[in-house]
Amino acid sequence: MVKVGVLGATGYAGIETVRLLTKHPEVEITRLVSHSFEGQKISDIYPNFDGVLDMECCALDIDDIAANCELVFTALPHGVSKDVIPELYAKGLKVIDLSGDFRYNDVDVYEEWYGEKHPAPELLEKSVYGLCEIHRDEIKKTTLVANPGCYTTTSIMALYPLLKAGVIKTDNIIIDAKSGVTGAGRTTKLDYSFSECTENTLAYKVATHRHTSEIEQELSIAAGEKVMVSFTPHLVPMKRGIYATCYANLKESINAEEIEKIYNDFYKGEYFVRLVPHGKIPESNWTAGSNFISIGFEIDTRLNRIVVCSTLDNLIKGAAGQAVQNMNIIMGYDEKTGLDMPGMYL
Amino acid sequence: MVKVGVLGATGYAGIETVRLLTKHPEVEITRLVSHSFEGQKISDIYPNFDGVLDMECCALDIDDIAANCELVFTALPHGVSKDVIPELYAKGLKVIDLSGDFRYNDVDVYEEWYGEKHPAPELLEKSVYGLCEIHRDEIKKTTLVANPGCYTTTSIMALYPLLKAGVIKTDNIIIDAKSGVTGAGRTTKLDYSFSECTENTLAYKVATHRHTSEIEQELSIAAGEKVMVSFTPHLVPMKRGIYATCYANLKESINAEEIEKIYNDFYKGEYFVRLVPHGKIPESNWTAGSNFISIGFEIDTRLNRIVVCSTLDNLIKGAAGQAVQNMNIIMGYDEKTGLDMPGMYL
Amino acid sequence: MVKVGVLGATGYAGIETVRLLTKHPEVEITRLVSHSFEGQKISDIYPNFDGVLDMECCALDIDDIAANCELVFTALPHGVSKDVIPELYAKGLKVIDLSGDFRYNDVDVYEEWYGEKHPAPELLEKSVYGLCEIHRDEIKKTTLVANPGCYTTTSIMALYPLLKAGVIKTDNIIIDAKSGVTGAGRTTKLDYSFSECTENTLAYKVATHRHTSEIEQELSIAAGEKVMVSFTPHLVPMKRGIYATCYANLKESINAEEIEKIYNDFYKGEYFVRLVPHGKIPESNWTAGSNFISIGFEIDTRLNRIVVCSTLDNLIKGAAGQAVQNMNIIMGYDEKTGLDMPGMYL
Amino acid sequence: MVKVGVLGATGYAGIETVRLLTKHPEVEITRLVSHSFEGQKISDIYPNFDGVLDMECCALDIDDIAANCELVFTALPHGVSKDVIPELYAKGLKVIDLSGDFRYNDVDVYEEWYGEKHPAPELLEKSVYGLCEIHRDEIKKTTLVANPGCYTTTSIMALYPLLKAGVIKTDNIIIDAKSGVTGAGRTTKLDYSFSECTENTLAYKVATHRHTSEIEQELSIAAGEKVMVSFTPHLVPMKRGIYATCYANLKESINAEEIEKIYNDFYKGEYFVRLVPHGKIPESNWTAGSNFISIGFEIDTRLNRIVVCSTLDNLIKGAAGQAVQNMNIIMGYDEKTGLDMPGMYL
Repeated sequence: MVKVGVLGATGYAGIETVRLLTKHPEVEITRLVSHSFEGQKISDIYPNFDGVLDMECCALDIDDIAANCELVFTALPHGVSKDVIPELYAKGLKVIDLSGDFRYNDVDVYEEWYGEKHPAPELLEKSVYGLCEIHRDEIKKTTLVANPGCYTTTSIMALYPLLKAGVIKTDNIIIDAKSGVTGAGRTTKLDYSFSECTENTLAYKVATHRHTSEIEQELSIAAGEKVMVSFTPHLVPMKRGIYATCYANLKESINAEEIEKIYNDFYKGEYFVRLVPHGKIPESNWTAGSNFISIGFEIDTRLNRIVVCSTLDNLIKGAAGQAVQNMNIIMGYDEKTGLDMPGMYL
Repeated sequence: MVKVGVLGATGYAGIETVRLLTKHPEVEITRLVSHSFEGQKISDIYPNFDGVLDMECCALDIDDIAANCELVFTALPHGVSKDVIPELYAKGLKVIDLSGDFRYNDVDVYEEWYGEKHPAPELLEKSVYGLCEIHRDEIKKTTLVANPGCYTTTSIMALYPLLKAGVIKTDNIIIDAKSGVTGAGRTTKLDYSFSECTENTLAYKVATHRHTSEIEQELSIAAGEKVMVSFTPHLVPMKRGIYATCYANLKESINAEEIEKIYNDFYKGEYFVRLVPHGKIPESNWTAGSNFISIGFEIDTRLNRIVVCSTLDNLIKGAAGQAVQNMNIIMGYDEKTGLDMPGMYL
Repeated sequence: MVKVGVLGATGYAGIETVRLLTKHPEVEITRLVSHSFEGQKISDIYPNFDGVLDMECCALDIDDIAANCELVFTALPHGVSKDVIPELYAKGLKVIDLSGDFRYNDVDVYEEWYGEKHPAPELLEKSVYGLCEIHRDEIKKTTLVANPGCYTTTSIMALYPLLKAGVIKTDNIIIDAKSGVTGAGRTTKLDYSFSECTENTLAYKVATHRHTSEIEQELSIAAGEKVMVSFTPHLVPMKRGIYATCYANLKESINAEEIEKIYNDFYKGEYFVRLVPHGKIPESNWTAGSNFISIGFEIDTRLNRIVVCSTLDNLIKGAAGQAVQNMNIIMGYDEKTGLDMPGMYL
Repeated sequence: MVKVGVLGATGYAGIETVRLLTKHPEVEITRLVSHSFEGQKISDIYPNFDGVLDMECCALDIDDIAANCELVFTALPHGVSKDVIPELYAKGLKVIDLSGDFRYNDVDVYEEWYGEKHPAPELLEKSVYGLCEIHRDEIKKTTLVANPGCYTTTSIMALYPLLKAGVIKTDNIIIDAKSGVTGAGRTTKLDYSFSECTENTLAYKVATHRHTSEIEQELSIAAGEKVMVSFTPHLVPMKRGIYATCYANLKESINAEEIEKIYNDFYKGEYFVRLVPHGKIPESNWTAGSNFISIGFEIDTRLNRIVVCSTLDNLIKGAAGQAVQNMNIIMGYDEKTGLDMPGMYL
């Protein structure tokens, strides 16, 4: 059993973490921190918890957290996160951070894409990029996990094996990603109102989205050379789910069986990775409500190009679920614990 | 541990039962019966099960079922169900039937509303109406549970305590219910296509819906006198969830605290019943993805009328979840087993 | 031709008025007033107007309006409206007001339901309730139309003929209404965000919604006696459309043909009223995108009760379309002008 | 005035054509042909037409059509279309065909992508590809217009100017397109049911969709050389609207102003083309409900790549609206006639 706190518990990533933790057999939730809802019961804010978890939210108090938690999930706003994480880390807590701050190996990349000084560059050497299937060994040894987000997890996991195997060229990789609206978090912006979002599809931050840099960092590791990609996020009118369609040119002609073998070898034994057999293409509702990712592909022989489609639940494998998976890894629990439900489909 | 078969496993109620059973610690699924998909893996039909449950569907074979299952959930089409249930029952299996066939105490009521002869009227005396919170004691003793549907569970649970307490008049009860589209099942009718359903709300079967008769049967028991109600089902453009707005005239002036007490007393200790405190009204996404029902009310003092709003997930508490709850009851398991997840909300 | 201004042009009712006016052959739009977007082109705020109407929004200046407009539509926030309307009226402009302020015959009713003093009670005698099919003769003679909203138009038009004909009792009228989310206007409240609204149905302001009082005012006129009703608004996850299911007890047994005759006689020659033949029930997408209202009914002979279902587009017949219809009436144009498009359906 | 028939009037493209024609001042609809609904009123099938157009549907009778129509829109199923068009053409009628059969310059391309013999290859020389803004001069002279569909119109119009100007390379063009569900037509397939489509995003026919060949035909004309593209269609959970995100490598470094000039020059004077200024990216609801197409772009200077986003209403500019625009061209009417409404946005 581990005593766990969730900081920023009432945002969408935070509350999804709480939801998963309530059914985790090894977890005792000891603190729910919410600046906005201090003193209120979590089940008053999210009535789906009524009778399941009626704990009160408290204000952020580092000493209190340190005294009562062994591990914390931090799903804090950008501005708050940067001060809090170093303190929690210094106190010796295990930290799984859902923000973007500690995901970079190179402080310059962070500063270029975020347009500001990094708050604690010395921690970048300590933190591990928490993409479980790829960095499991390092995650096991760290106490600061930089949990990746939905766009990055979907994109990196789709392309990593192909780059690692050296079968695709690195100069024309295009990732066209479609996200459900919860990806924007618990926000009151007009852009995310029902009347503006429903029956609407749009691209945004074309060629400028910050997560491009995370994707490039990881894909460069896979390729063993610097990789740059086009990444285009889109908003589509659904609540959950993310879908990435990835395009890359094949170095040489290769058939579907060989591609399947590359994926099967790379993700061998990975419970949460579903490799869709050639001939099928995954749909976002195959993974919604679960910690699974589905990956399928087609080869365009006319163009000697591969199209890889990957999809996951943005709030689970793309946020809270992967965070819990990281907790399982660093605590030495079976990695599936609390996460082995199938998707909802309906 | 109990060996369980699901007959009609690939319909929406069937597959939701399967989904809940895969995580039930006391259940071993031994047979999935599907006429349409015999020989195919359940995870090929519903890819959200890939890696979680890859069992093959088989044809209906009563002897095989009897040899391999102690308890079956039957979610069969109307025409098939009526022949199969008596055979299963005769073989001594525990049966939880999701059809409407065995929900009636009075065969005449069935025949009036269904417009046909009942297939096995002798079983009506054996079967128990599986509304767990109301008929638990009888359910414990039966081996044939007639599991109620979504409209009826939502409606009956909202009004039963008030009729039992004798505080509302029986002659002007109106139930206006709104259902998500999965309530129509796995169907290819044009009426349920995305392009026809989205951005659309409609009433249907006004004054003639069969479930009216079930609601009346149960509410009459509560009132101790014959109760007739207006019941109007509507389709609203969402996947899951049902919402009933119920209107009744109060016999005498009564305040909110007294109404709260009636509900609290009636549903005392009921884990799956959430009584929303006066001043709040429930929303369907408070229960979606869970086996909970939320009930709230307002008193219209101008009219001496009460308005009760109740909501649940049509596929869980309104179908598969309640079926599993019934299994827990008849098997003597803790009633919450496999069902104690909070709702999804998002 | 008439010179027209739209005040509050960038709210949802305002912009829908603008949309309808751009294709109205008798209208010259001379002013678009928007506090929030002064100096910006309407087509920059609503890009669907790009190339069709690129007029700039201006600040509110009564003298400027008076000098450049003969008729104004006011779709202003509650607080602003009350000061502006009297000034516009005093300047001799024709005013079609989409707020609730001037819809009451009795100032006490307004003050009871709004909980504040009426800003200009003397104008209540001048203003006419702009339900075109019911108050056409008075609308013709006024210069201040209080344009009714979506809930009220749907409800009143469904029940008015039955009360006028004296066939229903007045003591058990229940109106259960379901609205699309644009009914909440252009708002940034979390409650109306996509992630909170989609896949969600809820009742709100049960027994307390202000529009109850408007409905009762008009139905009392129809009945020739004081009528009180239960009115329950609901939010359903669609953009446009409103659906009212109305219940009333019949005084005496009456058959469907007689009910049809009552409706046909009452709405004889009314272009925008579609009386759905007995046996069918309307759906909200039959009217979405149009100024039509569809009304259908069923008689519950078991209970001697009638259920009337009516539906319209909340932004058109329930707001901007009816406002334009009112303009057509007071300007002496053919009432259909600019409004005779069929619905979108898809 | 022109006497017009719509063949296949009750499919989604057909009924949208009818909807637009009912408000077209130069059109008299003389025949609505529907195999499925012969003898029924169009307003009984699509109740949004009640009181606006109550014409009866008739069976297909070429002689009757020829006697009563000068121009026909054909929105027939693939199998029927191929026999009917040649007969209508031979009778001297003006034909605007919404099928794919006559869109090809090269019969071999058709036969390769459709996998069957072309029914009337001799007509391919007569037919004109009805992309109005690109082939207007040829459309004026033909009596057989092969009206393009939604994917192709969106894709071709986005990229044509850049290829014509010679600023992009032709070997890495990728078109990632997202379509609303009405694009699948009036279908009862389970895949398009509400419960399967809502909250779901998916790619389909990856690398194999027929419309790839149409896009390549037109883009090759633009480039003056053979162009091959990756085209990936997706289904997103909305009713109307299509969104194409197009990627191409720039030959040389070029700035946004130069790109804007290329588009402005190419589409100069085109009423239905909205060029979104650099810095903005269009959204699908900017064009929904209208015949407009919106095109925006961003340059990824890191990669010397351009990303073009284009969007239109799949049923209007992507089907029925463009068909009416083609009619306006061949009849010599002002091209905007009956089509100059702004989008709905809401």
